[in-house]
Amino acid sequence: MIILNGGSSSGKSGIVRCLQAVLPDPWLAFGCDSFVAALPAKLQTSDGGIVFAADGGVSVGAQFRALEAAWTEGIAAMGRAGARVVVDDVFLGGAASQRRWQKALDGLAVLWVGVRCEGTVAADREVARGDRVQGMAASQADVVHDGVFYDLEVDTTRTESMVCARTIAAHVC
Amino acid sequence: MIILNGGSSSGKSGIVRCLQAVLPDPWLAFGCDSFVAALPAKLQTSDGGIVFAADGGVSVGAQFRALEAAWTEGIAAMGRAGARVVVDDVFLGGAASQRRWQKALDGLAVLWVGVRCEGTVAADREVARGDRVQGMAASQADVVHDGVFYDLEVDTTRTESMVCARTIAAHVC
Amino acid sequence: MIILNGGSSSGKSGIVRCLQAVLPDPWLAFGCDSFVAALPAKLQTSDGGIVFAADGGVSVGAQFRALEAAWTEGIAAMGRAGARVVVDDVFLGGAASQRRWQKALDGLAVLWVGVRCEGTVAADREVARGDRVQGMAASQADVVHDGVFYDLEVDTTRTESMVCARTIAAHVC
Amino acid sequence: MIILNGGSSSGKSGIVRCLQAVLPDPWLAFGCDSFVAALPAKLQTSDGGIVFAADGGVSVGAQFRALEAAWTEGIAAMGRAGARVVVDDVFLGGAASQRRWQKALDGLAVLWVGVRCEGTVAADREVARGDRVQGMAASQADVVHDGVFYDLEVDTTRTESMVCARTIAAHVC
Repeated sequence: MIILNGGSSSGKSGIVRCLQAVLPDPWLAFGCDSFVAALPAKLQTSDGGIVFAADGGVSVGAQFRALEAAWTEGIAAMGRAGARVVVDDVFLGGAASQRRWQKALDGLAVLWVGVRCEGTVAADREVARGDRVQGMAASQADVVHDGVFYDLEVDTTRTESMVCARTIAAHVC
Repeated sequence: MIILNGGSSSGKSGIVRCLQAVLPDPWLAFGCDSFVAALPAKLQTSDGGIVFAADGGVSVGAQFRALEAAWTEGIAAMGRAGARVVVDDVFLGGAASQRRWQKALDGLAVLWVGVRCEGTVAADREVARGDRVQGMAASQADVVHDGVFYDLEVDTTRTESMVCARTIAAHVC
Repeated sequence: MIILNGGSSSGKSGIVRCLQAVLPDPWLAFGCDSFVAALPAKLQTSDGGIVFAADGGVSVGAQFRALEAAWTEGIAAMGRAGARVVVDDVFLGGAASQRRWQKALDGLAVLWVGVRCEGTVAADREVARGDRVQGMAASQADVVHDGVFYDLEVDTTRTESMVCARTIAAHVC
Repeated sequence: MIILNGGSSSGKSGIVRCLQAVLPDPWLAFGCDSFVAALPAKLQTSDGGIVFAADGGVSVGAQFRALEAAWTEGIAAMGRAGARVVVDDVFLGGAASQRRWQKALDGLAVLWVGVRCEGTVAADREVARGDRVQGMAASQADVVHDGVFYDLEVDTTRTESMVCARTIAAHVC
């Protein structure tokens, strides 16, 4: 398992696609985007779900947390069933988020990767991609790394996704 | 767990979104589309992966099958961890595909739902949606139901997604 | 030129793709969705632009109107330059919206098509497609046809997109 | 009018979205992607249309060229009707492509912008975005600039989209 953690618009998805291209074995890719897409639409406008505020703030409720915990168990089960899995996530809870993953992934070999990007650069890329609420990139850039430990960190501020992916892949093979 | 099986463009995804809206509890939704999106792009052009032929034919190889088996285990694990999960799939292997799911879902309460749609109508809807290889709808309309048993069948040929969803929901609550 | 007018989720886009498939000559397709996609993101959160309220209401400001007028002139110019063009629009202003198009399309042969769908059915389809603010379908179903004249009307409530498209195509060839 | 020309995956769309954000007036954005989306699906598999080969090669036929010419006239008409318009295109024909635009835009103030990106970097970004046929970036990186003149050139190889956009915007205001 490879777990990538970084703020919104830090470049995680691009690194994941490059990783899938350069790693010799086939890897499955899941992440917070595909998890949110699996939620009922009504959880995106209710207190128990996930709310994207106009200023880029993200808050999640109890129903979201419960489904997320089950999803995490499921991703771990895919790994135990023999699949190579790369996950990109946003540790909104910092170290607490990592502990949840650690507990679920118990017994599996995991490479923890931090994906850094300077907040101002991530905020500009958020404008360039055009499909995200403005403000998420800046507000998440640092807090998601709070108290989190990594086997490896990459920084997309001045390094291309593919170069980051090759660095990560070198730790896997 | 709810497992929907039907051919391409039979209306499964629309029913799933309506189910998520009408069921009182929050349900996670996964399916063959989200699984294929999790695969490396290179598995879409290689013998071991999944190939969408220009005539609408779909063939899958050994690497696809191995990852799909692990994914199925993971979806089952989400259910065992307490999540309600609705899955829409295309049983390209008919009864054999169902047996794979049955084995993975052992011990879980499952509602098996067949989603029918006349091949000619599904083929027209394939044109209307515009994002699929032409020919998949017609070629899959019947074979995916071959030897498969259901608790419930719905037919989208002349019934709206929401009405089908309400019929299914009545069997869940 | 073919101009389709109908409320959100009435099935205009599906009919357009079917029309492009069944009409023997190649037709370009434009519409309110592609126009909104051409706008700066900031016009979607400002008073002068277009605002999608949480209840499905849509309001547009002066900057939106000015750009829309220029866009309409451009679409008309494509027709005068020899392209066959099908446009799907939502006449939020009813007859006044139609008069704007009439003025721009002066001298061109135009087929005016009304796309009807019962509000309750359109609202259910809005849930099924899952990518629209809930409430637009119901609130737009009738008002967009207010005072508008048509050469032809189709009703998607109980008629497939492809069948509607064939009816329209029969008036073109 | 601003016309950006560059190869696939050179970063044109990101620059356009940044331009729309930083320019004080609202600008409409059109380009080869939105034009191709307006074409009938059948033109993507026919000799007269546009064909994306598996190796990244792109070839276009007579029907494509005729519709493109009418579309170009329409974009010019939007500019004459008072809209500010930014277009991103891929001059597959180099100088000949530019002459077609020049003829259509006669009398309008145009800023010609070349968007460069080293072929190897663009090819890596093509993998990272994951939604394009592999090979287009490399094959188009240089030929699209052949014989084309610019008021201004930007290079995304080591410069962010937002920084490029600010450079361009400084020539507009």
